[in-house]
Amino acid sequence: MLALAASPLGIRTLVVDGAADACAGQVTELVVADWFDDAALDAFAARVDVVTFDFENVPAAVAERLAGKVSVFPNPRALSVAQDRLSEKTLFRECGLGTPEFAPVDTRDDLVRAVERIGAPAVLKTRRLGYDGKGQFRLKTPADIDAAWAALGDAAGQVGLILEAFVPFEREVSVVAVRGRDGAFRSWPLTRNWHVDGVLSLSLAPAPGSTDELERAANAHARTVAEALDYVGVFALELFVCNGKLLGNEMAPRVHNSGHWTIEGAHTSQFENHVRAVLGLPLGGTGVRGPSAMLNFIGEMPAMAPVLEVADGHWHDYGKEARPGRKVGHATVCAPDAGSLREKLAVVGEGLGRMAQVDPGIDALL
Amino acid sequence: MLALAASPLGIRTLVVDGAADACAGQVTELVVADWFDDAALDAFAARVDVVTFDFENVPAAVAERLAGKVSVFPNPRALSVAQDRLSEKTLFRECGLGTPEFAPVDTRDDLVRAVERIGAPAVLKTRRLGYDGKGQFRLKTPADIDAAWAALGDAAGQVGLILEAFVPFEREVSVVAVRGRDGAFRSWPLTRNWHVDGVLSLSLAPAPGSTDELERAANAHARTVAEALDYVGVFALELFVCNGKLLGNEMAPRVHNSGHWTIEGAHTSQFENHVRAVLGLPLGGTGVRGPSAMLNFIGEMPAMAPVLEVADGHWHDYGKEARPGRKVGHATVCAPDAGSLREKLAVVGEGLGRMAQVDPGIDALL
Repeated sequence: MLALAASPLGIRTLVVDGAADACAGQVTELVVADWFDDAALDAFAARVDVVTFDFENVPAAVAERLAGKVSVFPNPRALSVAQDRLSEKTLFRECGLGTPEFAPVDTRDDLVRAVERIGAPAVLKTRRLGYDGKGQFRLKTPADIDAAWAALGDAAGQVGLILEAFVPFEREVSVVAVRGRDGAFRSWPLTRNWHVDGVLSLSLAPAPGSTDELERAANAHARTVAEALDYVGVFALELFVCNGKLLGNEMAPRVHNSGHWTIEGAHTSQFENHVRAVLGLPLGGTGVRGPSAMLNFIGEMPAMAPVLEVADGHWHDYGKEARPGRKVGHATVCAPDAGSLREKLAVVGEGLGRMAQVDPGIDALL
Repeated sequence: MLALAASPLGIRTLVVDGAADACAGQVTELVVADWFDDAALDAFAARVDVVTFDFENVPAAVAERLAGKVSVFPNPRALSVAQDRLSEKTLFRECGLGTPEFAPVDTRDDLVRAVERIGAPAVLKTRRLGYDGKGQFRLKTPADIDAAWAALGDAAGQVGLILEAFVPFEREVSVVAVRGRDGAFRSWPLTRNWHVDGVLSLSLAPAPGSTDELERAANAHARTVAEALDYVGVFALELFVCNGKLLGNEMAPRVHNSGHWTIEGAHTSQFENHVRAVLGLPLGGTGVRGPSAMLNFIGEMPAMAPVLEVADGHWHDYGKEARPGRKVGHATVCAPDAGSLREKLAVVGEGLGRMAQVDPGIDALL
């Protein structure tokens, strides 16, 4: 989607990925190379003016190596902070954004002490390399410590662990934002998100029920965090709304699934603004055309007709092989107002046989 | 732009073009072959399910050959009719769409008789292979017959000639429309166009000053013509508004420059709907998001910042080498209402140093 957004700007892209069937290869030139193939990465760096990522788990050492040869945005330190749940939550607090209680866990004793302090329910997570609910274990009571340690204790040495208080949030929202090389900053309106098994299932934007105060607070937090990291490009802050206040959950240092609706729903998409930002071009407007809903497709693509048949319904098939748990595409439905979006969601949910996926959105739009 | 629109639908494209630097090669696989390289075309046909064109001067024999092996939309007969100014104008009249007076011209004597009947001013044009004002000679008075024949007489034997009355039109408009394999038909709102030296310079959509009656008439004419040809895909009818009535100028059997604004300005772009149509997928809505203006860039691209800086301003650089007279890109500016589009056009025209290009649009939006 980044390459597709770059093309009309006259920007040629070259993508490096370890997989020969990486979907970017459908629309741009693909270099197949392992992260640790220094010669291939050096050759890649020699062919481009700017390097960026759409994947947050690029090893920091690889980003550093590339940064020694060519401009890299976001900068490797920002990437490194965002890769580590402990450092990102610490940064959130330094920036005045509250977070659920947390404690680093390196040993089983650490876990016992953390549960004593934070209480249960709580979630034990890997500090690094986790995403989409992977590398997480939920402790309902302190009696789950053994099971949690059995599940994730082995990972403690490699990627570190963190225990986080389980927060009884009212809503999950995200703010997708962009910062330019010159410090210009813009954010799209808050997006409300619903996850199933830790994976994003549905987004609505602008988030129904958000107040101006919440919008302003999210925008201000995103800006403060971005400035602290001298971040350049698009990123997302995933937030919980608890008692009407925002708590920071995590930062994704890249274009984000909860911003996919911006392709059709906003004046400038997150993909185009990321390209503009890393190239030092003027940022585009983040205003919306109307309310949008985004449905994720996990595992396999459903039949496309129900989405194509609805006015302002948009289909995104990533051209990936079907595989359980894999994000293979999404659909976005736009409408002039909330009532009409609600009607379209019902039609699409019915047509796809996916009422359970759209129902939370239909309720929220009431 | 067709390949970029196909990609999110999960449709892989393969493009054949005689030029190794054809711009589609930036985003999809390109086969470089001459139209008359039968072996290359057969190999191409064997790799695809459906063939279509974004260029109307594909030789009819080539389209016929491909149609013997694979589905071809629009059908070769439709392509052949639209390639010939005489047969397309004859069809318009059969379909109840008036045209300027015209007469076929094969010899100098034909030209003399045609000028006697039609009068002057009039335009002598090649029947086939002309576009963007190429292959045309304007006769101001009958005394220009010698000069006209000197300019185009040689072409009479190869591509035929036609003399057309010069029409003192009030406005140039086009209707871009799409017809599906199942006969479903939709048109986008009328677009108003301004040409400079025969080449499209500026489009506004929906066409300011159009009445519902004109919109309905244009839509009905487009549908009648498409049905007469069993046309499948997107096409444009270029029309003159004369004394408040529509006259048919020409038909472009392809996605059309005057429909480029649909990428951002409509619920479904002409490119996506062409892909949907030729593949037998449901057609997308042709409603608009608001008024749009499209500026063509001929010869070379201007600096991009003035367009990127305006909210809902969109840049399209085709990645072509600069060359006098060549269409190398366009920009589209969208707005919520005519007044705001007018203001944005003034800002963009000023920023690009192209007030002469945007002025007609600014006047028309008053």
